[in-house]
Amino acid sequence: MRKCKLSIVLALALTLFCALPALAEGPVKTLSGDITLAQAQKILAAAVKKAEAIKVPMNIAIVDAGGNLKAFYRQEDAFIGSIDISIKKAMTARYFNMSTRTLGSVSQPGQPLYGIEASNDGLILFAGGVLLVDANNVIIGAIGVSGGSVDEDESVAFAGAAVIK
Amino acid sequence: MRKCKLSIVLALALTLFCALPALAEGPVKTLSGDITLAQAQKILAAAVKKAEAIKVPMNIAIVDAGGNLKAFYRQEDAFIGSIDISIKKAMTARYFNMSTRTLGSVSQPGQPLYGIEASNDGLILFAGGVLLVDANNVIIGAIGVSGGSVDEDESVAFAGAAVIK
Amino acid sequence: MRKCKLSIVLALALTLFCALPALAEGPVKTLSGDITLAQAQKILAAAVKKAEAIKVPMNIAIVDAGGNLKAFYRQEDAFIGSIDISIKKAMTARYFNMSTRTLGSVSQPGQPLYGIEASNDGLILFAGGVLLVDANNVIIGAIGVSGGSVDEDESVAFAGAAVIK
Amino acid sequence: MRKCKLSIVLALALTLFCALPALAEGPVKTLSGDITLAQAQKILAAAVKKAEAIKVPMNIAIVDAGGNLKAFYRQEDAFIGSIDISIKKAMTARYFNMSTRTLGSVSQPGQPLYGIEASNDGLILFAGGVLLVDANNVIIGAIGVSGGSVDEDESVAFAGAAVIK
Repeated sequence: MRKCKLSIVLALALTLFCALPALAEGPVKTLSGDITLAQAQKILAAAVKKAEAIKVPMNIAIVDAGGNLKAFYRQEDAFIGSIDISIKKAMTARYFNMSTRTLGSVSQPGQPLYGIEASNDGLILFAGGVLLVDANNVIIGAIGVSGGSVDEDESVAFAGAAVIK
Repeated sequence: MRKCKLSIVLALALTLFCALPALAEGPVKTLSGDITLAQAQKILAAAVKKAEAIKVPMNIAIVDAGGNLKAFYRQEDAFIGSIDISIKKAMTARYFNMSTRTLGSVSQPGQPLYGIEASNDGLILFAGGVLLVDANNVIIGAIGVSGGSVDEDESVAFAGAAVIK
Repeated sequence: MRKCKLSIVLALALTLFCALPALAEGPVKTLSGDITLAQAQKILAAAVKKAEAIKVPMNIAIVDAGGNLKAFYRQEDAFIGSIDISIKKAMTARYFNMSTRTLGSVSQPGQPLYGIEASNDGLILFAGGVLLVDANNVIIGAIGVSGGSVDEDESVAFAGAAVIK
Repeated sequence: MRKCKLSIVLALALTLFCALPALAEGPVKTLSGDITLAQAQKILAAAVKKAEAIKVPMNIAIVDAGGNLKAFYRQEDAFIGSIDISIKKAMTARYFNMSTRTLGSVSQPGQPLYGIEASNDGLILFAGGVLLVDANNVIIGAIGVSGGSVDEDESVAFAGAAVIK
């Protein structure tokens, strides 16, 4: 226990020390642990690889923990109409901290959340939006994929999400 | 295969040669092969002829390969509310490279793409939007027709699309 | 002149020949010569390199010849509010085939195009949006950068655009 | 006096007789004298001819007396961003029954209508939108042109508007 307390004090001291340059330049602008561009690129690369493997050209969008667009790729021949859908899938997943497949299942006619897609300037309620959870079990964003069947879309999203687990 | 590569090199060289006058006038502004106004007018004329034949006044919209409006006609007595629908039908078809009838069939309640109309500032999911595929088998845009029953709309769209095949 | 016509016929014939496999797979979905994801990634890499060199975190967006989003990166600490601005800068440049700096200069109060930003769901009228012109002198899209001063933004856009010339 | 009454009865009878086919098919759908598609095509042709003469590719939009889109052409190489502007110019002219040049002159900073462009989902306040007034001195719609300088745009709009005077 004592050892642990010491560790925390040490960690704080180190953090302070390392944060000093930032202090000099104004406040820290990004929450610690949020998705980085490097992570997003790694996720995009894995998703593209999967899309190429199943031979379906895709739109792939990544949002950060704040639900804001971080990175995006559209492959050759991928639907123009799926630009918006892939981005909305990623946002929808992060907005409700569940996959778009799960949200969709409770938003059908007769279901509790029927009509929810009219909120937030438009949600997407079918599979292909998946949370990005890092090795520390923290949600750091979401990935949205659109271009094939919803199962194909989701398989590409899973392939992307897998690389940061 | 080698023959094909050689052909491509040759084609590029020729393209460069022919593009020389353009160099003097600034960069080329339109990708080669996109729909021309002359083609759009021919398509509109064929669609109007069909609409007159079935005696249903129509709104007829044509978008280019990028999904941007190229030409539009509204006949006398055609619904004002169908201006937007005909344009959205054309855009929807090009956005997803399929007819709006086909897209609609997989977007019904309980179907995989249920709710997709909330994307892209509004899609149209019933018949009347059809791809424009030229004689070289390239998608150069789409036509959207609205004013009658969906079957009537689509028959007019097909009549328009037929003239550039 | 005759030579050029012959060249065009030859080029078309070769194009047809090479397009044969495509015929078997349905219509060609993308106009020849439009920006590829590989090109977009190369442009993004060059722009990121420049942003790192001047130490300003940026949002960088790329649109294709049709004005539709092709790729996007947001660097760590780059403004969230610049996601939309960078995308609109790229679109604005392609929509009017000129840099956003040039368009902005003729859209000031008292200038001919004053108020143009109210069109097209919002344009951006300050520097940072630049055309992407390839080695064949064809406009294949545009890049929009936002995150620093407008001069910094534009320097990053130029760095990106330079790699495909 | 008696003669006059007889005339009125006769006129009513004739009107009824002539209106019979319409009565059988439901109410008349379009105001008498509104712009026809044939007129719009004639206007478009004249505008295109002028645009070709001054060698500036244009977007040309025509709205009817109700301010609703009637016909539209985009010439090769005309700005994508001018689709929306040409349509908004035509609508703006009809919405306020004056040219967009005139409306713009009273909407500059310090002028009475400053900020009016924020209404009606976006107005355009520079030249290129002109009323369509027929031979009976009735406003039957408006034409909006966008693609060149505002003076070039307006010259093309005038060329179109001239043919129905």
